[in-house]
Amino acid sequence: MRTEWIKKRMNDKTRTQMYYAKKGIITEEMEYVAKEENLDPELVRSEVARGRLIIPANINHKHLKPMAIGRVSKTKVNSNIGASALASDIEEEVRKLETSVKYGADTVMDLSAGAKNMDEIREAIIAASPVPIGTVPMYQIIDEIGDVLELTYDDILRVLEKQAKQGVSYFTIHAGLLLRHMPEIAKRKMGIVSRGGSLTASWMLKHHKENPFYTIFDDILDICKEYDVSLSLGDSLRPGCLYDASDKAQLEELKVLGELTLRAWDKDVQVMIEGPGHVPINEIERNVRLEQIYCHEAPFYVLGPLVLDIGAGYDHIGSAIGAAMAAWYGVSMLCYVTPKEHLGLPNEEDVREGMLAYKIAAHSADIARKIPGARDKDDEMSDARYKFDWKKQFELALDPERAKEYHDETLPQEVFKEAEFCSMCGPKFCSYKVTQDAMENFDWDEFKKEAEEKMKAEANN
Amino acid sequence: MRTEWIKKRMNDKTRTQMYYAKKGIITEEMEYVAKEENLDPELVRSEVARGRLIIPANINHKHLKPMAIGRVSKTKVNSNIGASALASDIEEEVRKLETSVKYGADTVMDLSAGAKNMDEIREAIIAASPVPIGTVPMYQIIDEIGDVLELTYDDILRVLEKQAKQGVSYFTIHAGLLLRHMPEIAKRKMGIVSRGGSLTASWMLKHHKENPFYTIFDDILDICKEYDVSLSLGDSLRPGCLYDASDKAQLEELKVLGELTLRAWDKDVQVMIEGPGHVPINEIERNVRLEQIYCHEAPFYVLGPLVLDIGAGYDHIGSAIGAAMAAWYGVSMLCYVTPKEHLGLPNEEDVREGMLAYKIAAHSADIARKIPGARDKDDEMSDARYKFDWKKQFELALDPERAKEYHDETLPQEVFKEAEFCSMCGPKFCSYKVTQDAMENFDWDEFKKEAEEKMKAEANN
Repeated sequence: MRTEWIKKRMNDKTRTQMYYAKKGIITEEMEYVAKEENLDPELVRSEVARGRLIIPANINHKHLKPMAIGRVSKTKVNSNIGASALASDIEEEVRKLETSVKYGADTVMDLSAGAKNMDEIREAIIAASPVPIGTVPMYQIIDEIGDVLELTYDDILRVLEKQAKQGVSYFTIHAGLLLRHMPEIAKRKMGIVSRGGSLTASWMLKHHKENPFYTIFDDILDICKEYDVSLSLGDSLRPGCLYDASDKAQLEELKVLGELTLRAWDKDVQVMIEGPGHVPINEIERNVRLEQIYCHEAPFYVLGPLVLDIGAGYDHIGSAIGAAMAAWYGVSMLCYVTPKEHLGLPNEEDVREGMLAYKIAAHSADIARKIPGARDKDDEMSDARYKFDWKKQFELALDPERAKEYHDETLPQEVFKEAEFCSMCGPKFCSYKVTQDAMENFDWDEFKKEAEEKMKAEANN
Repeated sequence: MRTEWIKKRMNDKTRTQMYYAKKGIITEEMEYVAKEENLDPELVRSEVARGRLIIPANINHKHLKPMAIGRVSKTKVNSNIGASALASDIEEEVRKLETSVKYGADTVMDLSAGAKNMDEIREAIIAASPVPIGTVPMYQIIDEIGDVLELTYDDILRVLEKQAKQGVSYFTIHAGLLLRHMPEIAKRKMGIVSRGGSLTASWMLKHHKENPFYTIFDDILDICKEYDVSLSLGDSLRPGCLYDASDKAQLEELKVLGELTLRAWDKDVQVMIEGPGHVPINEIERNVRLEQIYCHEAPFYVLGPLVLDIGAGYDHIGSAIGAAMAAWYGVSMLCYVTPKEHLGLPNEEDVREGMLAYKIAAHSADIARKIPGARDKDDEMSDARYKFDWKKQFELALDPERAKEYHDETLPQEVFKEAEFCSMCGPKFCSYKVTQDAMENFDWDEFKKEAEEKMKAEANN
């Protein structure tokens, strides 16, 4: 789809969506997004120009279906996949991608680390993906050099260039963690829980040198600009527990991300900001507002947040609570969390559970934000329920297979697909049925007449 | 435990907790609750007297461990169990009770309906239960008379008296639905979704008579007063979908529940108010505030609420989002929802999933409300995580068995219980480990000296 679109732009020096938006040009990607989101194309353009909406779309990911992340569009959900040293099968990763997309992932991050064939895996994932693919390039950098302490600026740029050429649409870059933040980290219960952040910090502490991603940020921007890779500015200092939430370390880094945002926009590079993590319910709104202030309303992309620390085994639920609230308050994309969080590597069923929890969070926030049409399917579902149209109910559910499976667990026979009850209350106690029967047989005109007579009689007394 | 306490009160004409509280007497139940909740006993007494805190404790449930529902105490969770026409095994119901209590249910409602041996089942449940048992007496009333249209006032009082004698600690009574609300119901997508409410409405519409529970409310109060059964004033008109949320039908009934609250308090009967149901995220706070205003701050007890209608199969998650927010805004007890909601009868695993989702909602709200000590276990968990103390982590989790099971799925061997990594990131990419190593080997004094010198040099420039 994008092959023709991008061909036309061959002779333009800059080809990022933000560049065109600032020029007043509505790209085909913006048109596509506007149609998908039911928005005015001019609004999409102006929001992209302003940096409040991003369309992560590497010019080399030509079969990508453009999508947008920002406050005028629907809330998006990201799924994480990726090979490791123990499991690095290309087909398995492509299968995880397909599972993610099936259950509604809007973007997918390939977090492969330690795998031997990372380039091949990434190539296969991008080839198979209709959604933008993001990465944390630090993982491949470490893999290539072996020891993080040996890291050079050239290593960073080499890997970024390679991944950008492959068609990665956004990079998580941990450029906001600075040497001056280190003493604040020592005050925490859990230090640095961002993988990329902790690796970067170990290099900084060893060499007593400033964050390498910060130092060469302009060179990084040049690569992003060339391929239209969006930056997902990583929060190395996101809190790893409620105790560390909203502390000075986190908020000082957030301010640096705001500075970097302006530098990126200056080069027409699209930006989103990564956020926590672990945040108690009463601090979620404040976290969202501070991001909007410090980072100039660049789209906020959060991991959860988890609203408790003792929910292990059910962290998809504890974090979906935080995610729904965050999205309602102003977050644009949610990174899903699976039931295996804090315990181990998720399997395919965990991906499904995590995705569904997050589709629920995103959807319920969109309803609350009154995004036009957001509640349409919910209203159709209510009609189907009241009509006992079970097949329609399964069809409308976010996970139709699961809904049908649960219904059929107790009433599998085809005849029950039109039954005026389910196994929860049985035929005698179904409130829908009881109400319908009572209402249908009721003479409303007579009721009205009686009520009027009663009112008259009372008035005469 | 309570046998001696209640014996002492034998000659008192009224023996409800509210009666003693108003008299300025701190009962043993209040003392017990104060200790459990880490509150001043005098505060507990004054809140019970004011009606903002209830201690549902039938004088005939003598082995009950007293607990309290209200805003000064921790958020509570209710689990529903109950036999049906198809499954009415006493042992199974007792097992469901035990499962509920194991996973943290603070009260349990026996919603048996259509079963042949309902009295026996209720007796067995109360005998086995350390937590207060609630019921919806309408279900047994219908069972005894066969046809709801034959209902008489005596039927209601007979069943209430019987259940009160058995030791039921709270009754859901649908007394707030009045004839004048009927035209509003016709405007809804889903009519009446409360089972007790729909049955009551069908009697009212058939006979053109006012709600029988409303009509004989004073007689109901007399029974409650005699046994100290708390009233859970049911919301017959709770919305069954987002479309119907916060409509006139719902709010008009809520006002009636407020009137009934004052009448109950006047007779020293404890009251809580039942609430929705299905409410979009942006209307949850308003629903809580209106209950506080209309119902004079009587404890609010809600079912979810669900924040979307298309999450079937995952409604425990969609409703846990609403429940956590509701509890944060001011709800005192949450009625759990299982993954089978809208689809069928929950099994034991569903009870577990539902309970955990709701313990998470209640706990995270208590943290946000800054209930003293609410976050202690979370902080211990964070320490255990940073120390890689896996056994301690399992122990601290809300569901230790599940946490261990998930961890062991990939790393079952005993040696991994002390490993400084898990299967999520593997040994090389564990951010805790990387941070700890970097921090431990770092010379903080030298870092400070360098920073100071740098600042001086900059100042001199």
